[in-house]
Amino acid sequence: MVPVNQRTHAWAPPPTALMTDHYELTMLQAALHSGTAHRRSVFEVFARRLPAGRRYGVVAGTGRLLEGLSSFRFGDEQLRFLAGTGVVNDATLGFLADFRFTGSISGYAEGEAYFPHSPLLVVEATFAEACVLETYFLSVLNYDSAVASAASRMVGAAAGRPCIEMGSRRAHEEAAVAAARAAVIGGFDSTSNLEAGLRYGLRTVGTAAHSFTLLHDSEEDAFRAQLQSMGLGTTLLVDTYDVGTAVRRAVELAGPELGGVRLDSGDLVAQAAWVRELLDSLGNHRTRITVTSDLDEYAIASLNAAPVDAFGVGTRVVTGSGAPTSSMVYKLVAREDGSGRLRPVAKAAKGKASVGGRKHALRRRDEHGRATHELVGIGAMPEDDGDDRPLLQEFVRDGELLEGWTGPEGVVRARERHAASVAELPPAACRLSEGEPVLPTVLGPGAGA
Amino acid sequence: MVPVNQRTHAWAPPPTALMTDHYELTMLQAALHSGTAHRRSVFEVFARRLPAGRRYGVVAGTGRLLEGLSSFRFGDEQLRFLAGTGVVNDATLGFLADFRFTGSISGYAEGEAYFPHSPLLVVEATFAEACVLETYFLSVLNYDSAVASAASRMVGAAAGRPCIEMGSRRAHEEAAVAAARAAVIGGFDSTSNLEAGLRYGLRTVGTAAHSFTLLHDSEEDAFRAQLQSMGLGTTLLVDTYDVGTAVRRAVELAGPELGGVRLDSGDLVAQAAWVRELLDSLGNHRTRITVTSDLDEYAIASLNAAPVDAFGVGTRVVTGSGAPTSSMVYKLVAREDGSGRLRPVAKAAKGKASVGGRKHALRRRDEHGRATHELVGIGAMPEDDGDDRPLLQEFVRDGELLEGWTGPEGVVRARERHAASVAELPPAACRLSEGEPVLPTVLGPGAGA
Repeated sequence: MVPVNQRTHAWAPPPTALMTDHYELTMLQAALHSGTAHRRSVFEVFARRLPAGRRYGVVAGTGRLLEGLSSFRFGDEQLRFLAGTGVVNDATLGFLADFRFTGSISGYAEGEAYFPHSPLLVVEATFAEACVLETYFLSVLNYDSAVASAASRMVGAAAGRPCIEMGSRRAHEEAAVAAARAAVIGGFDSTSNLEAGLRYGLRTVGTAAHSFTLLHDSEEDAFRAQLQSMGLGTTLLVDTYDVGTAVRRAVELAGPELGGVRLDSGDLVAQAAWVRELLDSLGNHRTRITVTSDLDEYAIASLNAAPVDAFGVGTRVVTGSGAPTSSMVYKLVAREDGSGRLRPVAKAAKGKASVGGRKHALRRRDEHGRATHELVGIGAMPEDDGDDRPLLQEFVRDGELLEGWTGPEGVVRARERHAASVAELPPAACRLSEGEPVLPTVLGPGAGA
Repeated sequence: MVPVNQRTHAWAPPPTALMTDHYELTMLQAALHSGTAHRRSVFEVFARRLPAGRRYGVVAGTGRLLEGLSSFRFGDEQLRFLAGTGVVNDATLGFLADFRFTGSISGYAEGEAYFPHSPLLVVEATFAEACVLETYFLSVLNYDSAVASAASRMVGAAAGRPCIEMGSRRAHEEAAVAAARAAVIGGFDSTSNLEAGLRYGLRTVGTAAHSFTLLHDSEEDAFRAQLQSMGLGTTLLVDTYDVGTAVRRAVELAGPELGGVRLDSGDLVAQAAWVRELLDSLGNHRTRITVTSDLDEYAIASLNAAPVDAFGVGTRVVTGSGAPTSSMVYKLVAREDGSGRLRPVAKAAKGKASVGGRKHALRRRDEHGRATHELVGIGAMPEDDGDDRPLLQEFVRDGELLEGWTGPEGVVRARERHAASVAELPPAACRLSEGEPVLPTVLGPGAGA
């Protein structure tokens, strides 16, 4: 175990403490004033629903938020800003200057499939310590899970052929790094994002852009330059001018060892077929075809019968394929009362009511290991029938970060966990048509009974 | 003027150089190999189309990308990563180690309205210097402009009532900071994001969450704590239990000086009306009503006749209200040939053809100052008819950053510019129904003739 507020990797996130809504700190101030700030509290992250029509969601971001927790500190610059703008009073500034998270955090491990009301993160701490983390935790989980959930569907549609994340330019520059990481957790093979390679050890790949061809006096010059510099195993972009001409030229220059060609426009289904035929007719049976151009899970599925070897996915994966955020919320479900007892609390707001009480969760599985229900127990663990799988893992214990969740190792483990988690879902999980969550959530004190 | 690769603000962005697609660096390597890397080149950022049905787009991110350009350096950590993973060869590493941008950048100033094919950024440099910036520049512009474009529609729908950006928790934590900035450029009044306050001097605001009420033994205790700590001018959240009871209690405790109440659930149109009546009947004519809860431009428009004083907007503004990215591309449009002359270049790829030649742009205006056309001249400035407005501004000249575009000052100027730019558009620009861009783009060598 390492202290949670200490850097654990070469790459260190910037200060995260002010990536926080103004009201988190004014609530803290008012709670310090009323003497309730130090009441023991339980906050939970969950989603009331999945994005419309989705069969399952995928948790991602947990490792990142644990990394960012280590730099969740109010330093001089942050405190000066808060003092100068009068956001909070001196008593609150004093509390923030000494802020260390000393509570405990458990939740669904990264990569795990989730369903409505799954308790994705359970934060047990004083109100003061847990309250100030709300915005940052939700930002990380809402975005990363949106990308991983979309990526997982695309990987399912690709039916074993590799998907490559190439969407950096269509997302905020830091979100792009997180998206690459989340896509790989969701089953993507690799990414084009170099920073994600640096921070998380992801494999990075790339081909070439049209500008490279246009820079040269002819397509032949461009192809020759790329082949000489990058080797015959490189992938040439063949649709700058005429695809047929380009493919013939590529084979002339590279011979049978040409690694691949990339198609980035036009009717990909038809084009992949005749480019494959052309390559084969020229003897280039091992030259691979990568397709790009506004792919999403539906476009990938439509290419099911096409001779495509790899899918490069951009915009749609980094924007969650229609669901760019995950609607996860962070709610107080229990807190200490005046007599020191922890009691469940819930709001009644119309359409947004919450369920009080700390949650526990099991994935119910039948005797073949196939998942059948999401059991969420209120205040107690649902009864295990022998084949069930407990879902809550411990990440932080009394302010100490437990090992294995962060850094490159966390990503590798999350990717494996995701594959196993999806594999145990009913086959309907992979349907792209709109439908209900593939597992029903059973929520209650007697959940699983 | 200050050198572009030098910090200009207290807040400094992290190293941005690897927020880059793998292929940018391998193309650089191949171009260094073929001797074309140092050819003078012109790259342009533009969008082939606006998001479906939108009448105009809003440029945002320019100030941020100029700030990030100052930390676009390949330091030891970055070079070690590239060497260790073998992404590029030693010659390329040598070039990157010394990388400084020495070219020039002009474009549409931040806040400006834009249309299909508007030349939003024009980068003039060697191929090598311009190529490596592609991914980072597009990431910033595509996200920030998506948010500013959505924000501008919401501000139009709010018809003078303030919109407050509160979506941090529904976006990647760094994207959230950029979103706050872009929303304010698009006309939002303020944000809940404290980091955006620190970096860009934005006004931050906040109310309270349901958790604050639930933390206390009663709603009355919670209201009293907030009023005592934050003052009577604070805004109380009144829908944790029963809205009517909460409003009466708030007025009892705070009296006629109560600043505001927030409604976050239910039928906001009906509720705002009866809460206004209730407040008035209790003598609280000056207590303001803020509404939140999944607002977007359509929901805001539907509240047009409701007695709402401020709109808190979350998810929909930070996710671009259905268009989370802007489809902007970065294309080589001209480059030096073997004889040292700059010549236009364009690709022919199906559905993605580009138009060669450096662009110039004017907003054609009639004698009343009303915009009528977007004139984009290829290779030369369109002829000005006297009322037209030139659109390209100079940001970086020979590697030196010009003043006024970055930092808090850049945001203030962009916000003013945006208001003026939208004000000169035809009234149809503010229609929320789907339609064509409100100005036609005239693109050609004789544009404007």
